[in-house]
Amino acid sequence: MNCRGQLIVISGPSGAGKGTVCSALLEKNDFWISVSATTRSPRNAEINGIDYFFISKDEFKEKITSKDFLEYAEVYGNYYGTPKSEVLKVLDSGQDVILEIDIQGALNVKMAYPSGLFIFILPPSMEELRNRITNRGSETPESLMTRFTSAHKEISFVSKYDYAVVNDTVDNACNKIQSIVIAERCRVDRMNGDFLKEEISNE
Amino acid sequence: MNCRGQLIVISGPSGAGKGTVCSALLEKNDFWISVSATTRSPRNAEINGIDYFFISKDEFKEKITSKDFLEYAEVYGNYYGTPKSEVLKVLDSGQDVILEIDIQGALNVKMAYPSGLFIFILPPSMEELRNRITNRGSETPESLMTRFTSAHKEISFVSKYDYAVVNDTVDNACNKIQSIVIAERCRVDRMNGDFLKEEISNE
Repeated sequence: MNCRGQLIVISGPSGAGKGTVCSALLEKNDFWISVSATTRSPRNAEINGIDYFFISKDEFKEKITSKDFLEYAEVYGNYYGTPKSEVLKVLDSGQDVILEIDIQGALNVKMAYPSGLFIFILPPSMEELRNRITNRGSETPESLMTRFTSAHKEISFVSKYDYAVVNDTVDNACNKIQSIVIAERCRVDRMNGDFLKEEISNE
Repeated sequence: MNCRGQLIVISGPSGAGKGTVCSALLEKNDFWISVSATTRSPRNAEINGIDYFFISKDEFKEKITSKDFLEYAEVYGNYYGTPKSEVLKVLDSGQDVILEIDIQGALNVKMAYPSGLFIFILPPSMEELRNRITNRGSETPESLMTRFTSAHKEISFVSKYDYAVVNDTVDNACNKIQSIVIAERCRVDRMNGDFLKEEISNE
């Protein structure tokens, strides 16, 4: 994949607040955010095409067959996937793309595109994580427990990521992510030879 | 070296403006900037103990013998060196330290402390570099030519650094360096296990 935009993968345990952080980033910056497809039901106020593309299991399976996903995964009995063609088109145009995906999905993307920028959103504490999951209010007691146990285990996957950002406040988390994106553009190992040739040819 | 502060090495060719960038960074941030020792004569407005410690060749050689330098180098017939003990003390206290040093010195520090953060300041173009060196006004025609030829060669050393920052405006360069420092604090490979234990022990 020879793209000029950066693929920024934002991930983390359920309840760490990655959705809120990504929405805030989108308001502040010229990022293009990839909208995932899912077979789960919409929660309150979620809009089709904005929060997710809500599709049926049959539709999802057809798209798997036709290799229409950059990655996909089954989580808590539902499918989630990232439509491929549009992401690659936007990256090719030079624009940075944010993927907000769960840990399983992020690790699949990492295997396919290790040059992506993998950012793990951490809750400020496990207590705060429990509060956030509980206050979401859309979960049954069983799914609450599943989510919390899973989140606890998921945090250990932070070691597979490039960066970890504690979501103490959305503003702090956004500022750190913006800094990471700016810093990565300055990394010498991400620059190609053309940059240096250009510097010297200006003589 | 088990330090909690980051050692930020800012370097680049003669005329790229690393001194101006470092002064601006120091005004904006809580960095501690290491003052180098040198045997060269002060230029206009340079103050002993602020810009450099101006010392004699004999004094410098004594300090080399007593291993008082983190690195030292001979450049254009003069010695430049970074006093060691104070830098390590400040890093140990948890504060970030900026070293503004020439390329030869930076590469010596990198061999000794590869975990430092190595930032290369680039001029926006070779033409602008020539203007900056010429406008400095403190050089003879011979030393001008020596500096410019050397700067040209020095730019190829950018590949040995972690980050390259184009100094198009001092504000832009400072913002990028501040972003790099924030991003590096979020790097998973720079975090120790305590961070994760702390996250989980808050449960």
